[in-house]
Amino acid sequence: MGTLFGVGVGPGDPELMTIKARRVLASCPVIAYFAARRSRGNGYAVIEAFVEPHHELLRLTYPVTTEAVARDDYERLIGQFYDDSAGSIAAHLDAGRDVAVVCEGDPFFYGSYMYIHQRLAGRYPAEVVPGVTSVSAASAAAGRPLVSMNETLTVLPGVLEPDDLKRVLAGADAAAVMKVGRRLPAVRAAAEACGLADAALYVERASCDEQRVVPLSQTDDVEAPYFSLVLIPGTGIDER
Amino acid sequence: MGTLFGVGVGPGDPELMTIKARRVLASCPVIAYFAARRSRGNGYAVIEAFVEPHHELLRLTYPVTTEAVARDDYERLIGQFYDDSAGSIAAHLDAGRDVAVVCEGDPFFYGSYMYIHQRLAGRYPAEVVPGVTSVSAASAAAGRPLVSMNETLTVLPGVLEPDDLKRVLAGADAAAVMKVGRRLPAVRAAAEACGLADAALYVERASCDEQRVVPLSQTDDVEAPYFSLVLIPGTGIDER
Repeated sequence: MGTLFGVGVGPGDPELMTIKARRVLASCPVIAYFAARRSRGNGYAVIEAFVEPHHELLRLTYPVTTEAVARDDYERLIGQFYDDSAGSIAAHLDAGRDVAVVCEGDPFFYGSYMYIHQRLAGRYPAEVVPGVTSVSAASAAAGRPLVSMNETLTVLPGVLEPDDLKRVLAGADAAAVMKVGRRLPAVRAAAEACGLADAALYVERASCDEQRVVPLSQTDDVEAPYFSLVLIPGTGIDER
Repeated sequence: MGTLFGVGVGPGDPELMTIKARRVLASCPVIAYFAARRSRGNGYAVIEAFVEPHHELLRLTYPVTTEAVARDDYERLIGQFYDDSAGSIAAHLDAGRDVAVVCEGDPFFYGSYMYIHQRLAGRYPAEVVPGVTSVSAASAAAGRPLVSMNETLTVLPGVLEPDDLKRVLAGADAAAVMKVGRRLPAVRAAAEACGLADAALYVERASCDEQRVVPLSQTDDVEAPYFSLVLIPGTGIDER
């Protein structure tokens, strides 16, 4: 029986993979990765340079992503997709082949790998290799300490309803808003309502060549790319 | 003029250093690290195997740690310590030597490096290498997805007052309590008051050989070691 590995490959820069992630990838005969239709896959882009001739690649293509489909249809389609993906991976594990499932960032931090883990970790040996998150990469890119001393850090998805966005941001010492995407104007409006617009930073593709850091107040009403987030650094650092 | 590097070396397992962290450490003539008195330093323990004869080591010894000193005295002593440490590092930078400051986990996530960055980054070129946090390592050790879909994750220090601990835990979808130490009984009491004691996991020295994961409800009234935290995983994963 093979072992299932959930391998965090970090925020985008291949150099921000861990030594362990690289070793595990090299040792697994099968590398599985998620990708949207018409995309080569964000995780795959990180590891592409480390793929060797002995590797068998297993592409898992999301049936839907951000297209407008009814919520019930989406849940059914995506649930079926994870069932099918787990089945494809299990076939390799049954044949005694270790499988590395590639995850951008960290596997258990908003990663799709967790849906595979949930389906297979009870039946096969499974190990997660933690990775550097986009939150850490964005703080580094901005050159701004995120959270210190006795502060709390709240990580939230930008897809929350406007009132929830405001409530969560108002209660946080420091915050990181994930999955900004088309919700950039809503996130900016919530930060403005909380008096945090001047403190907030928009960080796009942290650690990648196209990395960009701008004050949130200076962003346009565009759809932010996948690898983007909003940081509101804590202020506790200024006290020492 | 040398460059200041804040290098996240990850949660404890040297294999969880990034490829970049290892490259930067190898390239810097000076490696600085923080350590408590009578300790060799948690960060130093991670990188020890990578120290080479050409490296000059700069140990920065905290004047106080968890001893009982009056709060005003503590703030004065620790502020002076960071001033002195920044001065020692600046002397190397002035002489044209790059300095890598080693940080457990991620430098801008509750790391001491930020106090050096705050004092020197305006005067010298500075770059932060993000690292794997203890939160990601603890989730991996527990084999439990931490946060998914539309959930929020709250990271908080165990040193908060009991009422604040309860308030923050009650409002979180998923939570990670850092700096547990001697506050383990207070954190457990807060989790119990919120009905979260059965869901919460105590994780000690994640990713290290002595790693230990136990339900929070089964912990004793002891002082937890430095590398320990409490996780309350989100439940959103169960819906898909």
